[in-house]
Amino acid sequence: MSSKSNIPKTVNTDLQKERDGASFGSEEFAIWWAGGAEKLKFNRSVREYMYTDFDYDDYAQMFYMSHEDICEFAVKCSINVAKKLRQLQADRNPGGNEYWPTLFEDPEIWGLHLAGNPFHVMFIVVLRALKTQCTPDQYEEFGKRVERFEVAAAYAQTELGHSSHLRGLETRADYDRATDEFVLNTPTISSYKWWPGGLGHCCNYAMVMAQLYIDGELKGLHLFYVQVREEGTHEPRPGIHVGELGKKMGFLGVNNGFLGMKNVRIPRTRMLMRHAQVHRDGTYVKSPVDALTYFSMLATRCIVARNTTLSLATAATIATRFSAVRRQSPIDPRLPEPQIIDHVTQQLKVFPEIATSLALRLAYDYLWDLFNVTSSDIDQGKYERLPELHALSCALKVMSSNDSAAGIEQLRLACGGLGYLASSNLGHLYANTVAACTYEGENTVLLLQVSHFLLKSWRAAESGAPLAPTVSYLAGMQQNPEFKVWTGSWENMVDAMELAAANKTRLALKSLSNRMDKGESERVAASHTGIELTQAAEFHARAFVFHNFLTEVTGPKSKTRSSALNRVLEQLLELYLVNVTLKHMSDIIRVASLTDVHLGQLQARLEAALTKLRPDAVAIVDGFDFSDEQLNSTLGFFDGNVLERVFDAALKSPMNRKSVPKSFHEHLGPFMKSNI
Amino acid sequence: MSSKSNIPKTVNTDLQKERDGASFGSEEFAIWWAGGAEKLKFNRSVREYMYTDFDYDDYAQMFYMSHEDICEFAVKCSINVAKKLRQLQADRNPGGNEYWPTLFEDPEIWGLHLAGNPFHVMFIVVLRALKTQCTPDQYEEFGKRVERFEVAAAYAQTELGHSSHLRGLETRADYDRATDEFVLNTPTISSYKWWPGGLGHCCNYAMVMAQLYIDGELKGLHLFYVQVREEGTHEPRPGIHVGELGKKMGFLGVNNGFLGMKNVRIPRTRMLMRHAQVHRDGTYVKSPVDALTYFSMLATRCIVARNTTLSLATAATIATRFSAVRRQSPIDPRLPEPQIIDHVTQQLKVFPEIATSLALRLAYDYLWDLFNVTSSDIDQGKYERLPELHALSCALKVMSSNDSAAGIEQLRLACGGLGYLASSNLGHLYANTVAACTYEGENTVLLLQVSHFLLKSWRAAESGAPLAPTVSYLAGMQQNPEFKVWTGSWENMVDAMELAAANKTRLALKSLSNRMDKGESERVAASHTGIELTQAAEFHARAFVFHNFLTEVTGPKSKTRSSALNRVLEQLLELYLVNVTLKHMSDIIRVASLTDVHLGQLQARLEAALTKLRPDAVAIVDGFDFSDEQLNSTLGFFDGNVLERVFDAALKSPMNRKSVPKSFHEHLGPFMKSNI
Repeated sequence: MSSKSNIPKTVNTDLQKERDGASFGSEEFAIWWAGGAEKLKFNRSVREYMYTDFDYDDYAQMFYMSHEDICEFAVKCSINVAKKLRQLQADRNPGGNEYWPTLFEDPEIWGLHLAGNPFHVMFIVVLRALKTQCTPDQYEEFGKRVERFEVAAAYAQTELGHSSHLRGLETRADYDRATDEFVLNTPTISSYKWWPGGLGHCCNYAMVMAQLYIDGELKGLHLFYVQVREEGTHEPRPGIHVGELGKKMGFLGVNNGFLGMKNVRIPRTRMLMRHAQVHRDGTYVKSPVDALTYFSMLATRCIVARNTTLSLATAATIATRFSAVRRQSPIDPRLPEPQIIDHVTQQLKVFPEIATSLALRLAYDYLWDLFNVTSSDIDQGKYERLPELHALSCALKVMSSNDSAAGIEQLRLACGGLGYLASSNLGHLYANTVAACTYEGENTVLLLQVSHFLLKSWRAAESGAPLAPTVSYLAGMQQNPEFKVWTGSWENMVDAMELAAANKTRLALKSLSNRMDKGESERVAASHTGIELTQAAEFHARAFVFHNFLTEVTGPKSKTRSSALNRVLEQLLELYLVNVTLKHMSDIIRVASLTDVHLGQLQARLEAALTKLRPDAVAIVDGFDFSDEQLNSTLGFFDGNVLERVFDAALKSPMNRKSVPKSFHEHLGPFMKSNI
Repeated sequence: MSSKSNIPKTVNTDLQKERDGASFGSEEFAIWWAGGAEKLKFNRSVREYMYTDFDYDDYAQMFYMSHEDICEFAVKCSINVAKKLRQLQADRNPGGNEYWPTLFEDPEIWGLHLAGNPFHVMFIVVLRALKTQCTPDQYEEFGKRVERFEVAAAYAQTELGHSSHLRGLETRADYDRATDEFVLNTPTISSYKWWPGGLGHCCNYAMVMAQLYIDGELKGLHLFYVQVREEGTHEPRPGIHVGELGKKMGFLGVNNGFLGMKNVRIPRTRMLMRHAQVHRDGTYVKSPVDALTYFSMLATRCIVARNTTLSLATAATIATRFSAVRRQSPIDPRLPEPQIIDHVTQQLKVFPEIATSLALRLAYDYLWDLFNVTSSDIDQGKYERLPELHALSCALKVMSSNDSAAGIEQLRLACGGLGYLASSNLGHLYANTVAACTYEGENTVLLLQVSHFLLKSWRAAESGAPLAPTVSYLAGMQQNPEFKVWTGSWENMVDAMELAAANKTRLALKSLSNRMDKGESERVAASHTGIELTQAAEFHARAFVFHNFLTEVTGPKSKTRSSALNRVLEQLLELYLVNVTLKHMSDIIRVASLTDVHLGQLQARLEAALTKLRPDAVAIVDGFDFSDEQLNSTLGFFDGNVLERVFDAALKSPMNRKSVPKSFHEHLGPFMKSNI
């Protein structure tokens, strides 16, 4: 019996019919989604170059490898990507940076980093931090070498026993005036640096966050540039205990590491001294700007919001194509089994996630614009919008990671058992996405930070002070706490969500005040009000996403799009608003009096919105314009030959290379024989 | 620098304090949870025997292995467990079966099946099916050999292209009168058998579900006992194409397989003929009982409900102990970082899952009693309770798998980054548990089946017919659709949930009728009403769990427990009712008019319930009585030495055996050097 499978060269007929029947052009959607025709062309040309010799089967074998082999594979792939991008840069625009290093971790080439990129953090975080924390001389000495990839550097902040509470970090750097050196120590297991990407076996330098002591006196947290491995041999340096954390759910080859230090001596000049300094005689000069220490983390949060959202769009593409191809469960017993995309229950699992991809993506666009504006402001010494940017970046990082992870998992489940296969890539996508709920600021901790901003804004509004645009709805509620009549229009639903959000803040503040009235300090009271405060922050994010989605779809930008595309975007908006409103009805109903009739109408609108999107679903996800290499899923190929590819992938399991495995001879066979 | 870590021999002081401060005895809880002092003693004696030479580090290495090595490891472990259980049976009660094979897949020894048990299905499903489908002679010939483990058998039903819709299966068995044989074929890729546990490389026989044809005439689905591999060499037999499906999210070593057949001939007597027969001359005798064909699947669903619930309790144990040990984020800045179990936001992540474990476990107890009663009834030819049992088993399988999977993932996230490490075992637990949402009946498909029972019951009630106990609340609504006044008592909350559930069924039926009035057939209308119907089924499950939890805690059984234990169970009940009621408020508020004041009171009760459980949380999960081997988690050891164990586990990653990996010499080193 042949074990060869034949994957058809043609597109699955069901899928082709979907494309032929769409009410709008995928290509126009793709241009809009990419951010313009030029950008789309650029993306495609990058993919064409980068994936030219991509071997799908080779990559797919990653899932079968041992942990060690995966780690080695990740390094090999990442170095190859770096080489290729530099070549691309040299070919097309020598001296520029739009290809290298800008695209090193770009979504367009995620398919080449299947096991993760151990040097990701080096370009996203370390270089950014070196730029903002080094003196010019230091940057010349440390930063330029990282830029050129002569060395590899990690960012070592979190410790095994300490993460969100930075002031609790235990790693210490004592100034030794006698030798003009710092002496670094991790005195306990809990002070071991823990998590830095690439630190395990890939980096020879690390930016280390440590408590600075001069003459035994604590001066607070500072960054130190520490060599952890020899440049030639890559052996750990004296006093350095470095290694990797072991297997994780995802980020399989990212080589997250630990670092222990015992009396590690570095020259005084290896403290990053742009803002604070230690002089030769031990004099300490404090940083004049505190607010900026964490600005690089803010940029990272924005990128997390974007990446998790794009991961959701990836999964939505896979599940939508699968749903159009898979046939299951007869509706009318006289007819053949329908495409599962015809079941309303399937539509409810899949289509809202397409809409969520858009809602979160548009929210990210707003966030990124605000980031750029605020960055320019800061360059000119203006810090006014920083608190708002901080709050919005936290809120959207939380919402994007939470909703995207949950959405991906729902989409995976919508693919039934086949979604459980590694070859679907959905489990892997989930594992990588859900990680964002706990890294770069654990989500609950971030929500509490957002809530502080909400409380501050609420109190400011009470005193008549002007509010930042994204919280102006709080003042609205104070001025007019009664909801207008429920009409069910989009504007009306946005108003309702904003009022529900404002009400959450109001109620949380009330509880907080009650606790303070009973003698609790504000800190303690805030902690005890944590549930209501985090909920208020969550609603704040939802209200913002609602408002922004409505503006983007119905506002002035709609004039730049065809009416066919606008119609589809409006249908996605309708689905999103109705579905999310229904999900949060128990809070909305506290501010807007909806009757049973209204609720029945919303349910009917939900089903109508699904029906309307049905003929366009495939064309919409086609418009996300992910290549097969980016999706890397047997269920999501553009050609829709799902069963053939699932089958083909199974045949390529290493277990299927031999007809009888070793364990039969060693264990199973002798045991069964002994029972006869 | 030493890479030795030292795990303290003592219990972490924070954890010890929790145990010392509990308001009740863990041991009494453990006896109650186990189902009596005798059962607890039995469980512990089994564990003592089975884990006596357990090597934790050996097992933990599984996560680092290649897929092939994991598959081999799983076979080795499973055979060892089988040998040991048979030895235990022989030692303690020769000729009995309470140890072997009863315990082969028992939760008490899950720790020994870390990679999964490829022979699980053989004892849970195949033997059961052989017993009910074989003639006595056939059972003697096939069944007894499976019992003795002389052969290994899989259950091959689902196909690559067909799962929930059984009548769509394509595998065919044609009777060849000339040779007195059946000829089996899987004519297409979509008809390949797909998923059977152990089928890949572990089994030499398979029960195959196929469409029976006699003289080209279809006689429907029947079971055939097919030899797929040679008993001596284990090589696939002629015409058999067998292998495994490749890597999955979980069930890593369960060896799920595929099976293709090309003109595979088996004697006529290999069709299982207890109910239907094919005679030598080709005469076909139809089965007199149709209802029982799937009774073995019903038992499996009950077991799934139990296992997913116990997995949730496992995760709750891990996360609760971790929360008592981990210190993070100061509440009062003058004090050291508190145990994270003191943060209300953490309590809300963890404690409700403890309560859910109890609620689902008690619901399972009811289900299992009903199963046993119904089994006895059936033996006496009484089938009255079968539809109710079917519906309840579907409803609880869905609710237990959904809520347990979601709960486990929430508990994992509550452990922050450390929950992401494989050594926490939480990701693995999740992957194995969430699989149950799509296997043994995909959850949406099962909910639709439940909804059919609800509609039937509703209509029966309208005509005055008596209802089965678990749906009697439907008649209650018809007689008295108005909710009593909201008092917030437990009984009142149960009433509200039942009324909300009945209302869901009422609304779904209304939509269904509207569609039928417009000319849709009932089948088509039901499909279009799928969203409301599945929601009605979900609420039915919730209402049942509410009712049952209340009865178990406050009913007559409470007299058998100490008041201290009852107080804790009541607190868990309170938390569960309040939390779930709040989550489903948008539907409850449609039947019970709660004011804003009532909602505020519920929020206050939620927080009060968390506070009350705080001192007892650790003692409760101790009462689940899981051993360290069952938990297999660095975060959940009884001794609470979390950081030391996480650190120790990291050091044992194979990547840490060498200081410099191969990829440095081959890729990273040369690349960095070339950049200098």
